[in-house]
Amino acid sequence: MNNFTFYSPTEFVFGKDVESKTGELCLKYGAKRVMIVYGGGSAERSGLLGRIRASLAGSGIEYCELGGVHPNPLDTKVREGITLAKEYNPDMILPVGGGSTIDTAKAIAVGYHYEGDFWDFYIGKAKPVKALPVGVVLTIPAAGSEGSGNTVITNVETKVKAGLRQPMILRPKFAVMNPELTLTLPEWQTASGISDMMAHILERYLSNTPGVQIGDRLAEGMLLAIMETAETLMANPDDYDARANIMWCGTIAHNDTCSLGRQEDWNSHAMEHEISAMYDVTHGAGLAVIFPAFLKYASSKNPGKVAQLAHRVLGIADSGDASADAYAGAEALKKWFHDVLHMPVTFAQLGIPNPNLDEMNMRLHRLKGEVLGGYMQLDAAATMEIYKLAM
Amino acid sequence: MNNFTFYSPTEFVFGKDVESKTGELCLKYGAKRVMIVYGGGSAERSGLLGRIRASLAGSGIEYCELGGVHPNPLDTKVREGITLAKEYNPDMILPVGGGSTIDTAKAIAVGYHYEGDFWDFYIGKAKPVKALPVGVVLTIPAAGSEGSGNTVITNVETKVKAGLRQPMILRPKFAVMNPELTLTLPEWQTASGISDMMAHILERYLSNTPGVQIGDRLAEGMLLAIMETAETLMANPDDYDARANIMWCGTIAHNDTCSLGRQEDWNSHAMEHEISAMYDVTHGAGLAVIFPAFLKYASSKNPGKVAQLAHRVLGIADSGDASADAYAGAEALKKWFHDVLHMPVTFAQLGIPNPNLDEMNMRLHRLKGEVLGGYMQLDAAATMEIYKLAM
Repeated sequence: MNNFTFYSPTEFVFGKDVESKTGELCLKYGAKRVMIVYGGGSAERSGLLGRIRASLAGSGIEYCELGGVHPNPLDTKVREGITLAKEYNPDMILPVGGGSTIDTAKAIAVGYHYEGDFWDFYIGKAKPVKALPVGVVLTIPAAGSEGSGNTVITNVETKVKAGLRQPMILRPKFAVMNPELTLTLPEWQTASGISDMMAHILERYLSNTPGVQIGDRLAEGMLLAIMETAETLMANPDDYDARANIMWCGTIAHNDTCSLGRQEDWNSHAMEHEISAMYDVTHGAGLAVIFPAFLKYASSKNPGKVAQLAHRVLGIADSGDASADAYAGAEALKKWFHDVLHMPVTFAQLGIPNPNLDEMNMRLHRLKGEVLGGYMQLDAAATMEIYKLAM
Repeated sequence: MNNFTFYSPTEFVFGKDVESKTGELCLKYGAKRVMIVYGGGSAERSGLLGRIRASLAGSGIEYCELGGVHPNPLDTKVREGITLAKEYNPDMILPVGGGSTIDTAKAIAVGYHYEGDFWDFYIGKAKPVKALPVGVVLTIPAAGSEGSGNTVITNVETKVKAGLRQPMILRPKFAVMNPELTLTLPEWQTASGISDMMAHILERYLSNTPGVQIGDRLAEGMLLAIMETAETLMANPDDYDARANIMWCGTIAHNDTCSLGRQEDWNSHAMEHEISAMYDVTHGAGLAVIFPAFLKYASSKNPGKVAQLAHRVLGIADSGDASADAYAGAEALKKWFHDVLHMPVTFAQLGIPNPNLDEMNMRLHRLKGEVLGGYMQLDAAATMEIYKLAM
């Protein structure tokens, strides 16, 4: 096990009706003037934004609003938000929505204190030292951004999708999480969220670091709970407990609970980011296409952890042949994504029958370097093989 | 799943040599004048206290010291500490040790701000509203106090062992956790620590709250990781990775990671506290005696969760008869405590061949009421039956 620091200071307030505590929580964390950030019209139509405004007003908190955050959130909206924040001078950013909204809020939170262009932080040209505090009202379980110190933004001009990881300044102060708010999510969004959170766990699980039994077991436990409750949920979208399990799993999948003292992978995410950036697909759906392909490739090159996953999570009996079991596990996961979540599991099902794999692969290595390290060393030939396995 | 708040703001700094960061961490959390609290002479003899003093001095931090904390820590030492703290006026309490030392430090931290006797907090006569911050250097993985908002103290005069739970003010600011410091622990202490952390998980696991799949799976994952690495450790006490897994498991067993949205039990702890209070046994050893007895009793009254534990963790095949499987699971756990951990599993093995069960049971119900609620309703006849099952 490697040395590690685990710091997850977010106060998670979870359950029915908890959004009514938003104003009180803002006050608790020192905010009297907040900037609400949200996405499309559903938060308005559902009455949620109205309840949040009422809760803020009830605590004597002033606010301004920035709507219209796009899925796969864009740098242009972040710049609009930073301009507004510099005019309004809020003491907290309050995203009401899912990962895209939260990631936009975090980008505004770091950009507010910076004279240059916030994008510098995302391409490593500058390092943020402080951020406005962020409080979250979560509506879509998927990205885990409510408990993480990460944010991912897409640059409209360069089509680069890049991330920033700053746990010490970007973990939200609080996250208000009411599973009832997710009861009306369309099946597609529920399912791609589940695919996303499973990918967050698997990226951490795929590791060559020895002696990390506890991280492995926690990851396997999360995957088992997700798969069990997802099956309930896809059959009965109104099941509150299943919604609650999925919502909480989305958070701990990404707050480092299962990444203790280990090298992580994240190459499937890197490969999917290029699909999203070129074709603007839903992130979780892209992951459902890439991950089984990645695991299939791994089954012949480095089957260990994939075989363990197959045995402990995916119902594959131990045949004594790790490669074969790992391959069977990859097939089982692909089938599960398809049969239970109704996710696309090939480029064609994702609506891209003829992807430009050459450009995709070229862009991947231009951003990430000649060889991607991690669970396996992946040169351009290797990543091309994985992209092709997803055809 | 019930509504819940999850708040674990402690910064855990984990791995080799991390105690050298103690001074830096104190400064980070605003301390310039700390009170070191420790137990017996081993922290001095091992050189650890010397390294901590050097780290504090290197960061320009002043300190005073309180040594001599007893296992099953006593109110008398807490009062001594409060008197010292009121003279010295530290801005942080820094326990260097295991659960007894940390619990004593927390008691001093709340008592410092109180005009009355600190024991009032432990018997519900008063509620603390603030506490001095606590930073921890952990040397014994067991109690999980480094990540919890709890403290348990024994009153010398009344022999009452009572707890205080105040997560919002008593969670440590940071915990320095170097598994190497545990390499020299005597087998007995290692094993009773493991028994203690397993009990912390099981107390949370035993719940009738429906729809808590994620909490169940996390708890099962922790137990599997503990049992796997404990077997390694008992055979090879020098195994760093096994020590690291056990140390981290001890923390998350008790920081509420696996108690999300559920009613917990804690009756085995209550029953063990009376054994400790009357006979001053090691807490973890007392739990190894009580828990299998408790699970045996449960196997006929409310077998559900015990049977699930048997199937998923204890290697019992599903026979279709939940009661029988639960009983077999209780037997398997008892055998594992005995064969692997070399723990006592009966009163006689605990060195109490003729326990005064009548007094023990009377004391239990005097403190906890006529009927203990939780996973099962336990009146005096029921708890007596459990005590007798431990004979």
